[in-house]
Amino acid sequence: MSKKLTKRADDYSRWYNELVVKADLAENSAVRGCMVIKPYGFAIWEKMQAELDRMFKETGHQNAYFPLFVPKSLFEAEEKNAEGFAKECAVVTHYRLQNDPEKEGKLRVDPEAKLEEELVVRPTSEAIIWNTYKGWIQSYRDLPLLINQWANVVRWEMRTRLFLRTAEFLWQEGHTAHATKNEAIAEAKQMQEVYAEFAENFMAMPVIKGVKSDSERFAGAEDTYTIEALMQDGKALQAGTSHFLGQNFAEAFDVKFTSKEGKQEHVWATSWGVSTRLIGGLIMTHSDDNGLVLPPKLAPIQVVIVPIYKGEEQLEAISEKVNKIVNDLRKKGISVKFDSRDTYRPGAKFAEYELKGVPIRIAIGNRDLENGTLEIARRDTFEKQTINQSDVVATIESLLNEIQENLFKKAINFRKENTTVVNDFKEFKKAIKKGGFISAHWDGTEETEDRIKEYTKATIRCIPNDVVEEAGVCVLTGKPSSKRVLFAKAY
Amino acid sequence: MSKKLTKRADDYSRWYNELVVKADLAENSAVRGCMVIKPYGFAIWEKMQAELDRMFKETGHQNAYFPLFVPKSLFEAEEKNAEGFAKECAVVTHYRLQNDPEKEGKLRVDPEAKLEEELVVRPTSEAIIWNTYKGWIQSYRDLPLLINQWANVVRWEMRTRLFLRTAEFLWQEGHTAHATKNEAIAEAKQMQEVYAEFAENFMAMPVIKGVKSDSERFAGAEDTYTIEALMQDGKALQAGTSHFLGQNFAEAFDVKFTSKEGKQEHVWATSWGVSTRLIGGLIMTHSDDNGLVLPPKLAPIQVVIVPIYKGEEQLEAISEKVNKIVNDLRKKGISVKFDSRDTYRPGAKFAEYELKGVPIRIAIGNRDLENGTLEIARRDTFEKQTINQSDVVATIESLLNEIQENLFKKAINFRKENTTVVNDFKEFKKAIKKGGFISAHWDGTEETEDRIKEYTKATIRCIPNDVVEEAGVCVLTGKPSSKRVLFAKAY
Repeated sequence: MSKKLTKRADDYSRWYNELVVKADLAENSAVRGCMVIKPYGFAIWEKMQAELDRMFKETGHQNAYFPLFVPKSLFEAEEKNAEGFAKECAVVTHYRLQNDPEKEGKLRVDPEAKLEEELVVRPTSEAIIWNTYKGWIQSYRDLPLLINQWANVVRWEMRTRLFLRTAEFLWQEGHTAHATKNEAIAEAKQMQEVYAEFAENFMAMPVIKGVKSDSERFAGAEDTYTIEALMQDGKALQAGTSHFLGQNFAEAFDVKFTSKEGKQEHVWATSWGVSTRLIGGLIMTHSDDNGLVLPPKLAPIQVVIVPIYKGEEQLEAISEKVNKIVNDLRKKGISVKFDSRDTYRPGAKFAEYELKGVPIRIAIGNRDLENGTLEIARRDTFEKQTINQSDVVATIESLLNEIQENLFKKAINFRKENTTVVNDFKEFKKAIKKGGFISAHWDGTEETEDRIKEYTKATIRCIPNDVVEEAGVCVLTGKPSSKRVLFAKAY
Repeated sequence: MSKKLTKRADDYSRWYNELVVKADLAENSAVRGCMVIKPYGFAIWEKMQAELDRMFKETGHQNAYFPLFVPKSLFEAEEKNAEGFAKECAVVTHYRLQNDPEKEGKLRVDPEAKLEEELVVRPTSEAIIWNTYKGWIQSYRDLPLLINQWANVVRWEMRTRLFLRTAEFLWQEGHTAHATKNEAIAEAKQMQEVYAEFAENFMAMPVIKGVKSDSERFAGAEDTYTIEALMQDGKALQAGTSHFLGQNFAEAFDVKFTSKEGKQEHVWATSWGVSTRLIGGLIMTHSDDNGLVLPPKLAPIQVVIVPIYKGEEQLEAISEKVNKIVNDLRKKGISVKFDSRDTYRPGAKFAEYELKGVPIRIAIGNRDLENGTLEIARRDTFEKQTINQSDVVATIESLLNEIQENLFKKAINFRKENTTVVNDFKEFKKAIKKGGFISAHWDGTEETEDRIKEYTKATIRCIPNDVVEEAGVCVLTGKPSSKRVLFAKAY
């Protein structure tokens, strides 16, 4: 396979697909719509998991594990949710295969092993979890119940793309229960903040925090809080959502508690999740025509060291020096790889780590040994500098921070340049053609939202949390509007 | 629910089931045979995962993720493996539900959404992984390929028990590819060592390392290396297995590589796994009639501090002191919980943490404040001592080590006392009645093995790695035998 990538300007979608495969992040599998996450891609997910898990625990949540399967009768219990997922769920109907009497060496479903009740492979776990919570919640003393699960879920999507939309994906889903409406809303908003902090501080991906319109809301929720990011091609990516579920699931599964005052009340719920889709967002925020660009905080390898040598003897001398540097960097918690393979030339190694987005590359050759120097190259700006070996730890530490900040700043600038304030539908259509976020007045009706989507493929990404009340008129209908909302075409 | 446990001597199986539920480890779900792992139980699994994952990475393995579903045609490809799992696999046949025209508000499988090819929910991932490896392995440079996956798998077992045998369970499965037979065997044996080290050093659960007999071997393997533990009721538990798969999967999926000499050869494979079943083993190795007993290295809470107070003022004074102690202990990496809830009395708290197996309990009251003391109680021996507050960190640190060692020693002694060397079938039957491991000569035939199982329910757990060649005669047939093997009834 050629290592040469399609250019973003030529075909962004193709560039993305090629990059995911060539940088060894993931690939399609033999199962329609399901991906294999390769070790390098999974290492990014592990880094994401570790940070998110820490943040969840710091906000009082515990992990647990609930079954993969949801019996059909439970799946049906909360109507809106069931309707939302019925069209795309994988269903287990049998529990055994047998030898196919018509085809030697082949198996077929054993017709006698039909399940009495079909099992839905979880597209999300509200149903199975709320059915369980019924047994866990009796009194206000049992509340709040703050639980998270790391799991795989399945949604039988017809059009799939690696990381962005796959039939099976990995995610975390938080499911909490509270004594009051306000507490539940505060929880849902808190998790939106946690997601935003993760996206910006770790992924270096700026996000707009907001609330979804009625038609874009999660099936079964009263309110969906979202974080929306802008990709390099001007399309938005919903990167994480946190739902205030009201009492819908508590009512559907009859989950009540005795309040301090001795009254029986239904509990209030939230759920919130982010998924391997984040890796897609990470790629489309920072990467370039040369390959992946990773923010140091999530890079599986932060620094790679490539020796430039002729013959065994030079390699040995360089290795001795490098091993010390590797140890010094590791002591500071920096992940370093020393690539001393003799099966590849330095140029090939440079290209590989560029493609894989390693933030800093160190090259060290014979002359460097003599001079006590080494060469440092940044992946984000391609800048190079030669420094003294004695400065390596301090230089790398500050450079990693600088790269992390630079990536975030670049992304913030990109979003600024690609956010357009429009006041009529002509401007709207022009802006949509250009791409990016569009801030526009909207009359608040689903009908208008639908029509705008039909004409332009743009949807309301969110009503931003920091929206300012401002008198205006809807870009489509001219009806009065009190605030601008954010439109974009979206993944 | 009464907190009183059935006694082990009265009904071991009932004791186990009650303990798992009452100690908040897990419970049965609405899905037949699938469990909910509750936060406290899951916290133990997280600790196990963290240690194992570290050990896997230290031995050069990387994590990845492969699809949940295996298309039937891939599932069939390796015959022995397919046959082994066909009888107990969950099968997805449809990808959509629709409104049931006959039942208002109900859903049914949409007959038009039938999959062209059925999908098996993975009972293990050899098939899907080896189908993927075909694309990853071309040259000897691509080998060895050392990959692990943390995942859920499903085996439609008819008789299930929490942790020990459930339809869905969590596990890790390593899948490696090697250029030579010897390398693959060395890898399989290495992972057996890793498992044994984890079992003994972290779970404080002694294990016998050995190899399985032909009939107990994994379907599709050439050799299965196992670690076998002895539970308190005299039954054995297969705690982890590592398989040398020969070239079976490489042949079934046509995975070849070009050797250094330029020859095309099939690669050599291993797979190895441990699961949430380990938690069952942990429980049945150490726990007692009062509840769970956890080795400190895997205890989610290592130390609990319970204040003994009257009134708000005393609690405040105690809390001030305790907060300092908590900080000091946490600095040493010890997980501490200060339970200052005013909704429960100290006695109830003592009972709760005893049931939950917290290794050390500290009690501190008003008199302790005056004297500068506190009371420490061990969960494993129930020993109590009063110490000076200034000694608390050093005392706790050494006590945690002592408890870890004591649990292992006790378990080793139990196994010694419950391992019987027998020389004829009368002795064999007597020993089986008593329970435990039985070391006996066997003529090496599957027929004899089957007959012994039929007569006594005992199976060959393994041929121990450290078996000594010794002339003898088979306990059942009297035929000559060159070594003893290990029998037991097993979970």
